Amino acid sequence: MQTSGSGPVASGPVALALDFGGTKVESALVDGAGRLLPGSRFRAPTGPSASSEGLWESVASVLDAALAAVGDRELIGVGIGTAGPIDERAGLVSPLNVPQWRGFPFRDRVVEWLRDRATPAPVTLRMDGLAITLADHWIGAAGGVDNVMGMVVSTGIGGGLILGGATVSGPTGNAGHIGHIEVGGFDVRCACGGTGCVEAVASGPRSVAWARSQGWTGNSGEQLATAYTAGDAIARAAVRRAGTAIGRAIASAAALTDLEVVAVGGGFSRVSPDLFGFIREAIDERAEFGFVKKVQVVPSGLSDEGPLIGAAALIHRAAVVTGSAEPQPLGSST
Amino acid sequence: MQTSGSGPVASGPVALALDFGGTKVESALVDGAGRLLPGSRFRAPTGPSASSEGLWESVASVLDAALAAVGDRELIGVGIGTAGPIDERAGLVSPLNVPQWRGFPFRDRVVEWLRDRATPAPVTLRMDGLAITLADHWIGAAGGVDNVMGMVVSTGIGGGLILGGATVSGPTGNAGHIGHIEVGGFDVRCACGGTGCVEAVASGPRSVAWARSQGWTGNSGEQLATAYTAGDAIARAAVRRAGTAIGRAIASAAALTDLEVVAVGGGFSRVSPDLFGFIREAIDERAEFGFVKKVQVVPSGLSDEGPLIGAAALIHRAAVVTGSAEPQPLGSST
Repeated sequence: MQTSGSGPVASGPVALALDFGGTKVESALVDGAGRLLPGSRFRAPTGPSASSEGLWESVASVLDAALAAVGDRELIGVGIGTAGPIDERAGLVSPLNVPQWRGFPFRDRVVEWLRDRATPAPVTLRMDGLAITLADHWIGAAGGVDNVMGMVVSTGIGGGLILGGATVSGPTGNAGHIGHIEVGGFDVRCACGGTGCVEAVASGPRSVAWARSQGWTGNSGEQLATAYTAGDAIARAAVRRAGTAIGRAIASAAALTDLEVVAVGGGFSRVSPDLFGFIREAIDERAEFGFVKKVQVVPSGLSDEGPLIGAAALIHRAAVVTGSAEPQPLGSST
Repeated sequence: MQTSGSGPVASGPVALALDFGGTKVESALVDGAGRLLPGSRFRAPTGPSASSEGLWESVASVLDAALAAVGDRELIGVGIGTAGPIDERAGLVSPLNVPQWRGFPFRDRVVEWLRDRATPAPVTLRMDGLAITLADHWIGAAGGVDNVMGMVVSTGIGGGLILGGATVSGPTGNAGHIGHIEVGGFDVRCACGGTGCVEAVASGPRSVAWARSQGWTGNSGEQLATAYTAGDAIARAAVRRAGTAIGRAIASAAALTDLEVVAVGGGFSRVSPDLFGFIREAIDERAEFGFVKKVQVVPSGLSDEGPLIGAAALIHRAAVVTGSAEPQPLGSST
């Protein structure tokens, strides 16, 4: 189950980071500098075939493995980044791609798990998009910037918001659904019911599907990247189209929230470095609004450890996490 | 110049409220309960024909008139709501519809004006859309709600954001430009450069223009309201179209910021009560997202005093106004 270790030897207190998604759940111990402890990263699958309790057993298995790696270090909390939607106050999750969990009491189950192991520690649960934004704000491309949107362009499009130096998760915890900002000029129906949501236009699978509708014969984002580099006209049009839509979504978000930096990560964000040029062109169309055009769009500075570092940031960077003091009645220490 | 008095006799400390727009500037004294002092409301025109200094003289005239009405009450500050864009930190304004003012040092001019009158008091300047949102949050339809968007649907579409119980004005002060959120399904080019910005679709003038393009022969939002009530098919389609676009913009904003209440005011918001039904239908299209559908859209509870009450809220409700402690170097008392 252990997948990798990395970085120099960590010291000081550690957070137990958990990243839960539709295909896998990962855990790791992370120190106060955002470094994963060598030998503390674990992974288990979370497929559609598992039962609700089977999913929880996968979670518990990676939690147990990471806990065993704590040794004599101080564990200062468990940070959970999860696919959404969620109910932040109640600690419930209903991930769109995990139909077995609807209103699953994720936070309280982790609190119980800690209690059963006589390990009191606070538990903070947030959307994964917010966690990765916190990671970029902590050690990545948006370090030290007070008004940031993180954006993950992959199978779907998600993200998170930090405004005025503090996270915005909203009364239910679902702020940051940048994938479901509509964009003009693409009247595609989204699975959520929206019209022209940027996720329905510019995600990896939707970009591949659009290219295929134009006669391209590849099947994946990776193949689209290769075709782009080779100069294939449809692939180039597909990447431009995605960049235009992403840029328009960012411009709308900047008009609403006056952003300084948008950090864009996720597999499809690496389809070509040119993607960022197309994003820029779309934002610069907002010629009349200097406060929109000022937004810097940069590649996320994070590796595949980003989601875990972000989950750990929920603990190590609690001072910038709003709402983290919600009641945790089942034995938590805070 | 004096236009009206209203309400019961005020008591306690007062704020001097200033509302600056493209056709007029108004002032009033407002008490701690959000009431205008009788006899303290003044207005002067701000037309395109005035020079930059002529505009300032209009502002100073209404400031002087309101100041003379203070009497022996305590003046605790001057709150300015202004058309934007602005540079909040520097206190500069560049209202789109007031080309004479580009980078005009509005806040410092008011600070100087206070100094010249030996009346030390803090000065807070924010976008008018934020001010009116504060007014709805203080005494209007969004009272006591922590996550609110105010929206003014009139000649243009503007607004403001309160998230987590505090205003969001952003690093430049321009957050809340809800009119420049794009919406899917309407590929109209906006004056700002965007594609399908809700202001370019659903403002009063744009709705009238669309109805005329369909063969309707009226000329104003008021006539469109009358035609709607009379059952005119084009007028009904025009109001439905505006409601759909406004609803889609609200849904995108809710997806990004997890809003609880949106308070909608402005002249064109009163074209028909049915407008709110069309807005609701568009939001409810987001069938998969309970956290989007939960948003309540309500008519603003404010009269035409709303912008002044909001400007006063910048002072009386300073505890919920972020960033209000910026340096005011030219003699302000805070």
